[in-house]
Amino acid sequence: MAKKIVVIPGDGIGEEITNAAVLVLKKISDKFQLDLTFESHAAGGTAYDLYGTPLPEKTILAAKAADAVLFGAVGGAVWDNVDPALRPEKAILGLRKSLGLYANLRPIKVMDCLVEYSPLKKEIVSGIDIMIVRELIGGIYFGDKCESEMKDGFERAWDLENYSVPEVERIVKLAMETAQKRNNKVTSVDKANVLATSRLWRRTATKVAASYPDVKLQDMYVDNCAMQLAIHPTEFDVIVTGNLFGDILSDEAAVLGGSIGLMPSASIGECTSLYEPIHGSAPDIAGRGIANPIGTILSAAMLLRHSFAAEAAALAIEKAVEKALLDGYRTMDLYRDGFKKANTEEMTQAI
Amino acid sequence: MAKKIVVIPGDGIGEEITNAAVLVLKKISDKFQLDLTFESHAAGGTAYDLYGTPLPEKTILAAKAADAVLFGAVGGAVWDNVDPALRPEKAILGLRKSLGLYANLRPIKVMDCLVEYSPLKKEIVSGIDIMIVRELIGGIYFGDKCESEMKDGFERAWDLENYSVPEVERIVKLAMETAQKRNNKVTSVDKANVLATSRLWRRTATKVAASYPDVKLQDMYVDNCAMQLAIHPTEFDVIVTGNLFGDILSDEAAVLGGSIGLMPSASIGECTSLYEPIHGSAPDIAGRGIANPIGTILSAAMLLRHSFAAEAAALAIEKAVEKALLDGYRTMDLYRDGFKKANTEEMTQAI
Ligand SMILES: CC(C)[C@H](C(=O)O)[C@@H](O)C(=O)O
Ligand SMILES: CC(C)[C@H](C(=O)O)[C@@H](O)C(=O)O
Repeated sequence: MAKKIVVIPGDGIGEEITNAAVLVLKKISDKFQLDLTFESHAAGGTAYDLYGTPLPEKTILAAKAADAVLFGAVGGAVWDNVDPALRPEKAILGLRKSLGLYANLRPIKVMDCLVEYSPLKKEIVSGIDIMIVRELIGGIYFGDKCESEMKDGFERAWDLENYSVPEVERIVKLAMETAQKRNNKVTSVDKANVLATSRLWRRTATKVAASYPDVKLQDMYVDNCAMQLAIHPTEFDVIVTGNLFGDILSDEAAVLGGSIGLMPSASIGECTSLYEPIHGSAPDIAGRGIANPIGTILSAAMLLRHSFAAEAAALAIEKAVEKALLDGYRTMDLYRDGFKKANTEEMTQAI
Repeated sequence: MAKKIVVIPGDGIGEEITNAAVLVLKKISDKFQLDLTFESHAAGGTAYDLYGTPLPEKTILAAKAADAVLFGAVGGAVWDNVDPALRPEKAILGLRKSLGLYANLRPIKVMDCLVEYSPLKKEIVSGIDIMIVRELIGGIYFGDKCESEMKDGFERAWDLENYSVPEVERIVKLAMETAQKRNNKVTSVDKANVLATSRLWRRTATKVAASYPDVKLQDMYVDNCAMQLAIHPTEFDVIVTGNLFGDILSDEAAVLGGSIGLMPSASIGECTSLYEPIHGSAPDIAGRGIANPIGTILSAAMLLRHSFAAEAAALAIEKAVEKALLDGYRTMDLYRDGFKKANTEEMTQAI
């Protein structure tokens, strides 16, 4: 039976990179007889410009009805002064919420042939293999907020950070199960020496961990984790944390692991899963056909693996990416003397 | 007229490192006839054990009456299960609040002879010179919080992130003035694509910046900043940000700049200023006389400069630290083959 993938390109380079990934998916679909169909939908600043909303109802319905969603990227300075409720970012935040995507999985690995792209010394970063499990539909991202109010005679704004026990249980369980398939170690990151929410997080994580005696749970403060990622990144196996800390730490980890242009992610939950590269919409290079499609192509591989249990096809894509890189193809962001300069299309063809 | 420094050693290695710094201050005081007096006061987990509170009233009063405060470090796993209101961290948080220390200045620099200690490649980190200006008595650290309540049938906890316009104005002004004495560039870090508080922060920063036409203001998302610090750290001059983001980013920056054991900080505000190393209390090595005293000794140099306008004396300390390092002295945290292994006392003597 045909499997439907809803493709949401978004803004900036979103169109180019999702096109590239769809091309690869079509190729692999032929090869492995996966019978995939694709349907494109609008979201982000471009959707706002066209329809007055960054996340049209039609897009949400299509995503819910799909077997998987492939997402590009949203955002851009041109929409900086739009009403906060209509910002391009609302598209991805709204999709995460509507689809109940409570977990964002961001694998941080670096191929041997790319170790030199890491800003870290080779001996520090070699062998890095982290899975960041970020809570994605709770915390301060979705707490009550106030853009402006008067208090004691002054204007202020606020956002509520908050987590409930079931929200923490759900994500920590997933982290534990993820660790069981890896190296049986989970680092739970919080700021329990300052935040009440973190203290609830920590005691809940400890309770959940009791049911997984084979997995070692370590608690770490977020400031310390930001340091440890830079000095001992290979010590980590699975990192589980809240929405905001996950945003910061996963970007730091991604860049330490090499190029952010290479990093995929999977968001999973109660309904359709969504796959997106972790980089942004890069408006400065949009439309020039030079964006690195690899983050999105590897997200497509995660899609095949997690949503369609098509492990062989996923592996084939991952191998093809590795081969293209070993063969010396490099998009502009990674180009150095002695390599083969490739634009988006050439890189995609090589893969 | 004699100047009084209140010394608050705190927990763990706090005693050893503040002792070292006081020794250096006494020496420099003799040499430059500064006429310093010292008075030691309790705080942190040790104060809690002795007096049932991490921040005795006597300590607060002494700090307020002093000309400057030299602080060690607080915290330790033994106090993890203490009532949140009585945790060791309340000592430093309470002192910051009582003294109105709204700005924490964390210079991130790396001496040429220490570049190799950075986890970053030499060509990326060489020449790094950042001043992080962190808001210190507002934001989610001091917003209302709730350890546990029932909502919709589930237990949850929450913390309120919030900033008022005057709070942001004050810290951004300071950042602007700091940049005027440096390279005229301020990066204001927020998460304005998600948080209402960040949007107020950003519009206020933009307004303040209008009065400093010679300073270039750049806005940056916190996740992007966590990346840029790792790949382009030398692009930054002054970074200004809120309490929580400042906590995370300054620790990341410190470790990228080399050893966190070397980094000093100054907290300034409406009353007495406070100086402390940015590292923690390191309970695992406490009492063994092997802690690196340099972060605290350089904090003492900042104290002389900022609180007593004793620039020559401050410089003398900084030169002495550099000399000891150039001479090959290394505490355990930095020791490598071919150097002179020094414990806390030997390093202090060398300086
Ligand atoms: C675009 C933005 C709202 C988003 C986030 O903060 O979650 C992005 O940074 C990410 O990490 O996916
Ligand atoms: C000890 C802790 C409360 C403190 C903070 O988070 O501010 C520390 O990490 C720091 O940065 O000074």
